[in-house]
Amino acid sequence: MSEGFQSTTVQQMEADAARLKETAVKVGIDIWQDRVKAQTPHCGFGDKGICCKICAMGPCRITPKSPKGICGATADTIAGRNYLRMAAGGAATHSDHGRECVWKLYDSSADGNYHVTDATKLLNLAKEWGVPTEDRDIYDVAHEVAEIGLNEYGKIKGYQRWTDRATEERKKVWMEQDIMPRAVDREVVTAMHMTHMGCTADAEALVRQSLRCGLSDGWGGSMAGTEMSDILYGTPMPKETEGNLGVLEKDMVNIICHGHDPAVSEMIVLVAESKEMQDYARSFGARGINIVGLCCTANEIAMRHGVRMAGNFLQQENALLTGVVEAIVVDVQCIFPNIGPLSECFHTKFYTTSPIARIPFSTYLQLTSENAKDVATTIVKEACENFPKRDENKIFIPEHKHKASVGYSCEGIKSRLDTVTNSHLDELDTYKPLIQCVTSGVLRGAVAMVGCNNPKVRPDYSHIEIMKRLIENDVVIVATGCAAQAASKAGLLDKASKVLCGEGLRRVCTLADIPPVLHMGSCVDISRMMLLVTGIAKDWGIDVTQLPVVGCAPEWMSEKAVSIANYVVATGIDTYLGIDPMVSGSAQMMDLITNGTTKWVGAGYHINTDPEQLVKDILDGIEAKRAALGI
Amino acid sequence: MSEGFQSTTVQQMEADAARLKETAVKVGIDIWQDRVKAQTPHCGFGDKGICCKICAMGPCRITPKSPKGICGATADTIAGRNYLRMAAGGAATHSDHGRECVWKLYDSSADGNYHVTDATKLLNLAKEWGVPTEDRDIYDVAHEVAEIGLNEYGKIKGYQRWTDRATEERKKVWMEQDIMPRAVDREVVTAMHMTHMGCTADAEALVRQSLRCGLSDGWGGSMAGTEMSDILYGTPMPKETEGNLGVLEKDMVNIICHGHDPAVSEMIVLVAESKEMQDYARSFGARGINIVGLCCTANEIAMRHGVRMAGNFLQQENALLTGVVEAIVVDVQCIFPNIGPLSECFHTKFYTTSPIARIPFSTYLQLTSENAKDVATTIVKEACENFPKRDENKIFIPEHKHKASVGYSCEGIKSRLDTVTNSHLDELDTYKPLIQCVTSGVLRGAVAMVGCNNPKVRPDYSHIEIMKRLIENDVVIVATGCAAQAASKAGLLDKASKVLCGEGLRRVCTLADIPPVLHMGSCVDISRMMLLVTGIAKDWGIDVTQLPVVGCAPEWMSEKAVSIANYVVATGIDTYLGIDPMVSGSAQMMDLITNGTTKWVGAGYHINTDPEQLVKDILDGIEAKRAALGI
Repeated sequence: MSEGFQSTTVQQMEADAARLKETAVKVGIDIWQDRVKAQTPHCGFGDKGICCKICAMGPCRITPKSPKGICGATADTIAGRNYLRMAAGGAATHSDHGRECVWKLYDSSADGNYHVTDATKLLNLAKEWGVPTEDRDIYDVAHEVAEIGLNEYGKIKGYQRWTDRATEERKKVWMEQDIMPRAVDREVVTAMHMTHMGCTADAEALVRQSLRCGLSDGWGGSMAGTEMSDILYGTPMPKETEGNLGVLEKDMVNIICHGHDPAVSEMIVLVAESKEMQDYARSFGARGINIVGLCCTANEIAMRHGVRMAGNFLQQENALLTGVVEAIVVDVQCIFPNIGPLSECFHTKFYTTSPIARIPFSTYLQLTSENAKDVATTIVKEACENFPKRDENKIFIPEHKHKASVGYSCEGIKSRLDTVTNSHLDELDTYKPLIQCVTSGVLRGAVAMVGCNNPKVRPDYSHIEIMKRLIENDVVIVATGCAAQAASKAGLLDKASKVLCGEGLRRVCTLADIPPVLHMGSCVDISRMMLLVTGIAKDWGIDVTQLPVVGCAPEWMSEKAVSIANYVVATGIDTYLGIDPMVSGSAQMMDLITNGTTKWVGAGYHINTDPEQLVKDILDGIEAKRAALGI
Repeated sequence: MSEGFQSTTVQQMEADAARLKETAVKVGIDIWQDRVKAQTPHCGFGDKGICCKICAMGPCRITPKSPKGICGATADTIAGRNYLRMAAGGAATHSDHGRECVWKLYDSSADGNYHVTDATKLLNLAKEWGVPTEDRDIYDVAHEVAEIGLNEYGKIKGYQRWTDRATEERKKVWMEQDIMPRAVDREVVTAMHMTHMGCTADAEALVRQSLRCGLSDGWGGSMAGTEMSDILYGTPMPKETEGNLGVLEKDMVNIICHGHDPAVSEMIVLVAESKEMQDYARSFGARGINIVGLCCTANEIAMRHGVRMAGNFLQQENALLTGVVEAIVVDVQCIFPNIGPLSECFHTKFYTTSPIARIPFSTYLQLTSENAKDVATTIVKEACENFPKRDENKIFIPEHKHKASVGYSCEGIKSRLDTVTNSHLDELDTYKPLIQCVTSGVLRGAVAMVGCNNPKVRPDYSHIEIMKRLIENDVVIVATGCAAQAASKAGLLDKASKVLCGEGLRRVCTLADIPPVLHMGSCVDISRMMLLVTGIAKDWGIDVTQLPVVGCAPEWMSEKAVSIANYVVATGIDTYLGIDPMVSGSAQMMDLITNGTTKWVGAGYHINTDPEQLVKDILDGIEAKRAALGI
């Protein structure tokens, strides 16, 4: 079956990690594997969601002998409040990243650091929002659009304007269920207020606000993040790159960009590509500068520039342990605080750039719209100067890497579908060829693989095994975030990996020239997935809840994932979780997030911490949707 | 010394509570005293702030053997993040209450449910904000002012306009320390983003954001709440009422208003006072309707209408255990979820009115600007109809109550000071007479007593003992929230309690006809205290940090208190806490919230869980300020 393609296995990745751990031991630093051991077993109360730290009368814990907190809060109330706070933390975080992207558009100018790259996308958005465009300077349009976008975070009245893009049916459901999101920041504050001591104790109301808060992210802040990033840095289109630690180069200045907001990494890439900087690197004996990405930043710059990807969340310490990283530059989110002490064990320089993510043992260079290029230049230069300071005794770069085809934005996917459309007979720029594949049974359906890594399960194993099983069963995958990175490490973004697919999907991959796992971007880009399912539902003429499409987050860990899961469910997509959502101490909460939301919005969670079982559940779910459609 | 005045002691209050507990046992319901027992001992990790539940890799706990969380977060990072999240929860909660008040002004109209009562205050605010007032309908002015007020929550640029009221010196400090607050909701979201997994790990940055987030509350959302409430319902002026459970009446329809936002309680009071409703009550055999307040709602309606006060936070179950409460109506915050099952044990009807506080076992009647009077009418009528349903076997009303002089807003305080001013020689409407008392040594200083009840200390004991010791030492007290209620229960709001004061304060009480503890309102009204110290500093011509004035929260429990403590400190007022701020697991955090903030803003926390020691520390602190001033 393999026809020359060999997927890197989790065992091989673990062997690389084990070799790098030797270096960690040598330099005397702890890594996540050590800390997991020290933190195991976890506190059962927190794990089940029945520990409450919301007021200083506590902390309180629910046991058979203490079935209520001091205020009288039950397990249902406590788990519900904790859950909503996770959703609020996630929505705030994603959306605040989105806000920064809107600010960059607001600050963009012809002669500044940030420019309009995809003018068509800007003009389309301007049209959508009723902003005049004729005979106007593109930056005047940009600033007016950005101001409207910024106001979506704090406007005093009305609903998120991004929700106008949803299907009529979804908008109706959201209004009827009273979960249509208002200003993004307001939903977060409402969530914090509802969960304050002595406010909402009713679990159902807490779950409903989780949905609304999530929607303000997925159909608000995150969508703003994606849209503005595309306008500023270009809408991703299919391109080739590589992934896994093998992308680090022994004879080059290696700079890792890590985090989420492309405002920093875009500037690093721009500066590093300059002849001046490449020459500067060579003046220190390097072959040039090698920018690589980590975590969601990897996704952002891979999709737009083909920058190679060093790996996902739990790979961040491994990347530094190679000993060949001259600089790691971070912006916000998912940055291990341990990067500080770890980088001190090497010659590696650690730069923080955002007031949102101040981390000890880093050099803080706050990046603004005005100084962005200067900050990037400083970092790249200092990285070059750092190249000769490597300690040869600490160097080991694992060899594994794979080709990766990335950049499957909605526009990117449609561009591939257009290639298989008979342009004499059928209209272009639709999802109809994909729908035909699904209705005919060539494809059984699609799964959106999303989320982080989490040592509560065997890292990457769930991602990779589930994806392999799905493509084997002719289920096409769209992936973002650390899930997409897992696919990259295993080679599933390599078009050659189509050999692992069932016959139907393999044929589709060949005809459309795509890999079986379509890389859609970073975690804010799950908003792309929402537009994808909306577009498919509209082109198909059915409700989103009817599509044989599900979401799957087998290894999630961040609060953002809780926000995401809420908006994916609210959008009508069943979501399969491989990590318990930390409410299992409340039977009512477990019922609400599975059956409850299904009654309200037509979708809910399916939870199974065993990846083998989870993939079976997913396939059954897809087949059930097909059966209901009579296909 | 007592001269006919006898303070109710904590022992007497506890004896009343013990008698009511017998009823709880009889009806088979748990009360907070039972739940405290079941929840003791508390989890030490949570108590010390070194338990992290921010991502699903955890929960993680810091021990000598596991000094870092899985991500590498240290005790400092974890405690700092937890602390900022408490401040954010508090700021969100207070400010969202404030927002609802602004909305009521926005919705006010001559023929609607909500009206402009203090037109002068509205016109002054309009002038302050540059809103034209001449030849305009007062409601046009109101709506324009309200719209500006609402935008302070979500405006995309600029700082809180309420901070314009601060001293020049404070504004300078806030700018220099980069803690000048922006839009209220934005500060909450920034806090949530900074504390997300993998963002800020630096404890100093987390404490700074706590200050900024707090300022967005105290000099933002809370100030809006107070100001709009005064405009809508009238600025409180000194008036007489009574406090403690003895205000419940055996032969009347008792309705308890509990919560915070006066929009609900104002309407209940208005409706209940009508002849129609009083007659309706009589038609069921009652002598009339007796509205009483609980918690901060008690403060709101006592200050404006002289409505009597049943007690503070930990009195809420006791009030229902009297068996004579026909209805309890709540809006938001500090409502025990246990009120639900507890009211089910009696004939008591439990009404919830806000989507922010949905509570099981309640009748939910959402109150809006449009239906407010109708909802209030329904509740009052149903309460009357409920009167005959009492179970005589379950009735016991403790006798204790005290006279209470309330309503000492800044305007109220100045009105009393004007009475001791020689209007021929000196200007009126200033704090100068008070300043003269302090500089001359007749008064040693002032303490702002604030905060909740918390069973971690002996409830009310800390409040009352500290207040008694302070007034004995010629320290005048301003009090809000549950601290003010504790004073009320002990009789310290009774003007006759001046017999407990030192000679200087007693003379001041006599001359100005005030009690030694001045009731300034509810917990959002701590914004009044900020304006008070600002006014005194301006009239005195010194910096706020120089005033012999401190804050004290001996029994705080809610996140709002953390937000308050942050803005009080940022305003330059040392704050004495009797409850540990749940960061003791981090030496760095303990240093930052005491010494750190003192370096940045000139004030910090002083923590002592022993009330005897705490009051000594306070007196020492006041004397040190006096010594530094050379007075």
